[in-house]
Amino acid sequence: MAWTRKILRVNLTQGNCVSEPLNMAWAAAYLGQRGLASKYLVSEIDPKVDPLAPENKIIYATGPLTGTMASTGGRYSVITKGPLTGVIACSNSGGFFGAELKSAGWDMIIVEGKSPRPVYLHIENEQARLLSADDLWGRTVWATEGTLKKRHQDPLLRVSSIGRAGENQVLFAAIVNDLHRAAGRSGVGAVMGSKNLKAIAVRGTLGVGNIADGKAFMAAVAAGKKVLAENAVTGQGLPTYGTQVLMNVINEMGASPTRNHRDVQFEGARKISAEAMHEKRATDGRTHLVTNQACFGCTIACGRISRIDETHFSVDTKPQYWGANGGLEYEAAWALGNANGVDDLEALQYANLLCNEDGMDPISFGATVGAVMELYELGILSEDEIGLAAPFGSAEALCRLAEMTAHGEGFGKVVGQGSKRLCTRYGRPDLSMTVKGQEFPAYDGRALQGMALAYATSNRGACHLRGYMVSSEVFGIPIKTDPRETAGKPELLKAFQDATATVDSTGLCTFTTFAWTMNDIQPQIQAACEGDWSLESLLRTGERIWNLERDFNLAAGITAKDDTLPPRLLNEPCQTGASKGMVAELGKMLPEYYSLRGWTADGVPTAATRARLGL
Amino acid sequence: MAWTRKILRVNLTQGNCVSEPLNMAWAAAYLGQRGLASKYLVSEIDPKVDPLAPENKIIYATGPLTGTMASTGGRYSVITKGPLTGVIACSNSGGFFGAELKSAGWDMIIVEGKSPRPVYLHIENEQARLLSADDLWGRTVWATEGTLKKRHQDPLLRVSSIGRAGENQVLFAAIVNDLHRAAGRSGVGAVMGSKNLKAIAVRGTLGVGNIADGKAFMAAVAAGKKVLAENAVTGQGLPTYGTQVLMNVINEMGASPTRNHRDVQFEGARKISAEAMHEKRATDGRTHLVTNQACFGCTIACGRISRIDETHFSVDTKPQYWGANGGLEYEAAWALGNANGVDDLEALQYANLLCNEDGMDPISFGATVGAVMELYELGILSEDEIGLAAPFGSAEALCRLAEMTAHGEGFGKVVGQGSKRLCTRYGRPDLSMTVKGQEFPAYDGRALQGMALAYATSNRGACHLRGYMVSSEVFGIPIKTDPRETAGKPELLKAFQDATATVDSTGLCTFTTFAWTMNDIQPQIQAACEGDWSLESLLRTGERIWNLERDFNLAAGITAKDDTLPPRLLNEPCQTGASKGMVAELGKMLPEYYSLRGWTADGVPTAATRARLGL
Repeated sequence: MAWTRKILRVNLTQGNCVSEPLNMAWAAAYLGQRGLASKYLVSEIDPKVDPLAPENKIIYATGPLTGTMASTGGRYSVITKGPLTGVIACSNSGGFFGAELKSAGWDMIIVEGKSPRPVYLHIENEQARLLSADDLWGRTVWATEGTLKKRHQDPLLRVSSIGRAGENQVLFAAIVNDLHRAAGRSGVGAVMGSKNLKAIAVRGTLGVGNIADGKAFMAAVAAGKKVLAENAVTGQGLPTYGTQVLMNVINEMGASPTRNHRDVQFEGARKISAEAMHEKRATDGRTHLVTNQACFGCTIACGRISRIDETHFSVDTKPQYWGANGGLEYEAAWALGNANGVDDLEALQYANLLCNEDGMDPISFGATVGAVMELYELGILSEDEIGLAAPFGSAEALCRLAEMTAHGEGFGKVVGQGSKRLCTRYGRPDLSMTVKGQEFPAYDGRALQGMALAYATSNRGACHLRGYMVSSEVFGIPIKTDPRETAGKPELLKAFQDATATVDSTGLCTFTTFAWTMNDIQPQIQAACEGDWSLESLLRTGERIWNLERDFNLAAGITAKDDTLPPRLLNEPCQTGASKGMVAELGKMLPEYYSLRGWTADGVPTAATRARLGL
Repeated sequence: MAWTRKILRVNLTQGNCVSEPLNMAWAAAYLGQRGLASKYLVSEIDPKVDPLAPENKIIYATGPLTGTMASTGGRYSVITKGPLTGVIACSNSGGFFGAELKSAGWDMIIVEGKSPRPVYLHIENEQARLLSADDLWGRTVWATEGTLKKRHQDPLLRVSSIGRAGENQVLFAAIVNDLHRAAGRSGVGAVMGSKNLKAIAVRGTLGVGNIADGKAFMAAVAAGKKVLAENAVTGQGLPTYGTQVLMNVINEMGASPTRNHRDVQFEGARKISAEAMHEKRATDGRTHLVTNQACFGCTIACGRISRIDETHFSVDTKPQYWGANGGLEYEAAWALGNANGVDDLEALQYANLLCNEDGMDPISFGATVGAVMELYELGILSEDEIGLAAPFGSAEALCRLAEMTAHGEGFGKVVGQGSKRLCTRYGRPDLSMTVKGQEFPAYDGRALQGMALAYATSNRGACHLRGYMVSSEVFGIPIKTDPRETAGKPELLKAFQDATATVDSTGLCTFTTFAWTMNDIQPQIQAACEGDWSLESLLRTGERIWNLERDFNLAAGITAKDDTLPPRLLNEPCQTGASKGMVAELGKMLPEYYSLRGWTADGVPTAATRARLGL
């Protein structure tokens, strides 16, 4: 048979699943995954829709390289209007779920409406069914995955699901697949919860049959793998230390936001670093780190599997995990640790386990705890109100708040609304370390000027993965720039943002770009896909995607005023480190950025820009 | 594109790889895997060929259900003329290699000739290449797999390879894939070694595109899985205890060959049983058993992963394995334990690890050690000759001989020729517990009369997997028969042998037949394959395969005289147990068996039989 690329459209209100051909004209303009799914979302929903209403849709999308032999070709993205931010959300995940969905014959799943009762979607190749999840509701993602594998008698079933956080519509609830991998940010898990969709379970044996030029593809893939293997970051640093390789580096230069961004260096960083994960623990003489772990097709293998100390906290020891869990990743270690001044590695492992098993974004959760702790220290939040003492540095408060938030208990319900709503509720919105409602990740915008601009302009709120200027400002990839300098940053950031939008639309992992330039990626795309995928075409596609997202966000109600940073980053200088005395110089960069983008001074794409990009 | 079933033909002498279409007329008559590959082998080699000569061929074959969603549908078989036996060899393995080969688009690989230098075969979908294995020669299968994954930058590469035992042409060398799964018996690994073929490494992303009726197939597969899940053996016994569930059962009834078949009960059985593997060890307070593990698509998950006690023997602690290893399976535990009177579970784990990592059949290795120990106790073999004292029960002798045999050192070279050649060399061929040169597995033919006949008539020498009468004689599946009774056994065995030949040609695991009858399997085959796959057709196919194998063996030089058992089983009665006083009553069964098969009194298929089966 001819290979037909197709979409599974699932209407939860009506309870039906329908196959439809992929719009190949759109695929030619938006490639796949982030870009193509955004095009579908923007075309199908009202930008003003309440993200948690049935009228919002949620799309699970693979890229053209997902499920192929390309290194890291196992990614999928979840695209929806984000409940944490009110703007477009696009969360990307690895593991094996995306490749399995592709191998079942589906490029994309579009879920619409709301089911009257909890359901899950079960896919076996062409066959897709909605089945009752009444018995799964209230259970963790780990229990859900185990139950579904047993129920369908299929140990190779790949499951993407929400835990109790998503069910409770925690605004930073994640969607977790393969136990340890997550579409983590912007609350995409809460959208699943709002729709009574507990899980998607998929098994595919049809493979990937639509590679345009198999021989050229193999050659391009092999060349790309060689570059990754020979690069110091992707061939050595990430496999050995994972993303946690950053903990000491970022902290030592004074770019690590600490105690809700009061400081930029954390005195306890070394105790929670990659190096500490390699050391033997006092309790059992074994290292925290068990092994690294690769996602589908990945030759980097940055993932960590770590031991949980079953004696450290008086909690259920969860023997079914054999005491091990995914993480710590750098972002989680930072958000649970530095952001709260907690230097207890075991506590971080435990809180991270709760984030994995009940599906919460550890960045937003950890950063929100940071806000709670500052409000507590300022006397605005009391021990009575929270239910426990919560000073900076309290490992116990971190762990208890993780349990309360994951389980929807007491003050955890307030934490689960994120720091913007929490700080507003207690009269100090200025203490919310967020952009467009989403919490910052692990880099301080005062110390890294390019990141300040990246945060302010990111289309999904504060985010390091929409334009990772750290790459240039810290590692000199692809060129070294001074992190304290603003000149040249708008142009560089635009290039990063556009290129990232392209990479996020391929099925590849953005971590490849520590080693790969677009020159390494382009031959893989060109061999895999029909049509023109020249370098120029790829970069224009990225820019088109960026502007499509911007248009949606503008229609959703944001304005140039939202392209900003919390006053602390604009007014309170770094007190230590290489950028001591500096604040985020956003005003020096934003107008130039708008201009380079072909936007008005109000941050709106001009008609000429739209025309140039075919929007 | 239309899905074409095809064969990869590899000529090692010429160094080329060629694709050819699968002979669909033969597939209609021989199904796949064991049957179809045997048809190819029989058609292409001289039955008199030296198994270790370049003129022998070796075939790696999947079945029509390999790589599909059928439970256990991950099997492949290796078919060649066996160097241990001089008859047709067909060794079946699970893991993930077979499904990966299928997903790369290949039903079968036929390897012919001999490479002048060590090579390995690397397959990525359509692309197949022979590459130098100079640097892999002399390395374990574990090191080989790790090296190839790194070299090709592909963590999902599936590797089937030989260790040093295969290189050294140990006559019971195995081919090991996915670290822990093996095409174990008859010395298929030595054939790879004789051809200088170190490994086959495959990665496939094309899936399985030739299911005839997808909807009917899904329904049949789901029904089959339900039966497996609800069955006590496949749904509970095997997942919990693995094949080791048999250790105490078989021993207590007095059917466990002990100390080279001197006895039928082993006083140390409990100490090396499944139950013991669940107990905590004195050295570290942890259980031997780490987890069970499923092969591709398997819903039974009988596989064991066990800890190695790194303190127990003064050997390389192999930290790269994290102290864990596949096994113990019942057959390995029996052969390394009972057959030698060794009741040290740690020693068995270690010897089994050596069998895994250097690719040896633990059944034939362990049983050959049993012969060594008897010869030692009889004073025929001296400590000087062996290099160490080797009385029954010596865990140290077992482990040292495993090292010596795996590494090709000293007396290990003699052990590596198997017990028939070893016992003949020392003037006591009667002490070799073999049929057609292959060592018995873990059931005594004196205690189980049906197994006695199964051993004598098996087409690959002594084997429990060519007609597992244990199923009926011990477990009552599908009907309970008295193990001491000979009446009715020839008819039942023929049915078992024919049905097993069919199952071995499908891609399914024979363990499914603890729960499934042909009524459960038939709808899966019929939905997957074009043509007539009625029950009648399936059973006739099995009988056709059996007779094809028999014809080959006769042409290779065996006669009815080879359908026999060692004198010990025919003359020395069981001394204990339920069958105390009994010997194997082969003479009461063999003539009837020949007659039921439509063979002459000399064991040769008649012209009428050949015509009936279309041979």
